[in-house]
Amino acid sequence: MDDAIASLRSVRHFLPHPVPRVTIEEIIEVARWTGSARNRQPWRFVAVTDPAIREQLSRLGDYALLLARAPLVLALLSHDDGFADTEFDLGRIAQSICLAAHQRGLGTCLTTLHPDDNVRAAAEPLGAGPGWFPRHAIAVGYTDAENHRTPTAIPVGRLPVRELLTWVR
Amino acid sequence: MDDAIASLRSVRHFLPHPVPRVTIEEIIEVARWTGSARNRQPWRFVAVTDPAIREQLSRLGDYALLLARAPLVLALLSHDDGFADTEFDLGRIAQSICLAAHQRGLGTCLTTLHPDDNVRAAAEPLGAGPGWFPRHAIAVGYTDAENHRTPTAIPVGRLPVRELLTWVR
Repeated sequence: MDDAIASLRSVRHFLPHPVPRVTIEEIIEVARWTGSARNRQPWRFVAVTDPAIREQLSRLGDYALLLARAPLVLALLSHDDGFADTEFDLGRIAQSICLAAHQRGLGTCLTTLHPDDNVRAAAEPLGAGPGWFPRHAIAVGYTDAENHRTPTAIPVGRLPVRELLTWVR
Repeated sequence: MDDAIASLRSVRHFLPHPVPRVTIEEIIEVARWTGSARNRQPWRFVAVTDPAIREQLSRLGDYALLLARAPLVLALLSHDDGFADTEFDLGRIAQSICLAAHQRGLGTCLTTLHPDDNVRAAAEPLGAGPGWFPRHAIAVGYTDAENHRTPTAIPVGRLPVRELLTWVR
């Protein structure tokens, strides 16, 4: 469990192998137990394999290009009801999904669709219900280990515990 | 891993036993590997055992009363730099923290401090640095199994996969 959390990294290069439908269903079966404020479960998921729609989504966010080359995209829909905790709760279930995928040997990378015009444009091909919008999408696929370590412009590593944690007794 | 995610529940009743400092450090050591947009790590953590400060925090959110009766409160500080993904990223690391705590036999419950006046009021006793604000706080302690199942007004259970997941091929 500790290992899964500590070893989860964004994967941006995928093998072409398809992701089995049953595996996505298993991941949602596990992640759906994630908590949310007032147990509202302000989330729905749309799994996309269609290349034309993945390509369309990949142009709807600044760092979304990899959605075109992942074999599967899992769009995270949230309900825009003005509830302050919705984004926070979406982050909770996104972490559960990525951990459950990691456990199954799948790589994932979270992307954000924006601005709002793009979010609205993405809702239609996903068949989102009224009031549901895809602000985030997860690229999912088997890791291409050969290209996984391609350097990025983003600094790697994490801050140490002594910089992150203080005590009030 | 699946079991940990699927069995994590909010715990609102705690035994009085203190939470060892080393256990909180271990949890942060694991959770700090959680991803964030651009690897910004927009989070800091303040562990509070002082009863007067926990009592103060418990009055700064609508559902925060349990912060007074948990042996330890872990405040989640975020940096208000207008970056859209901050709340989402805080949700990701909150889930990692709760899973790592669950793994160690600790119960947790997420609470939200609000409105903004209350968030600012909470920042001071926590010694938050400039620009850092505690919008969320986690009650942490060993589960009081005898009272854990006390009924609440919040509906329990989760939506089934068939209502949560659709496919676009």
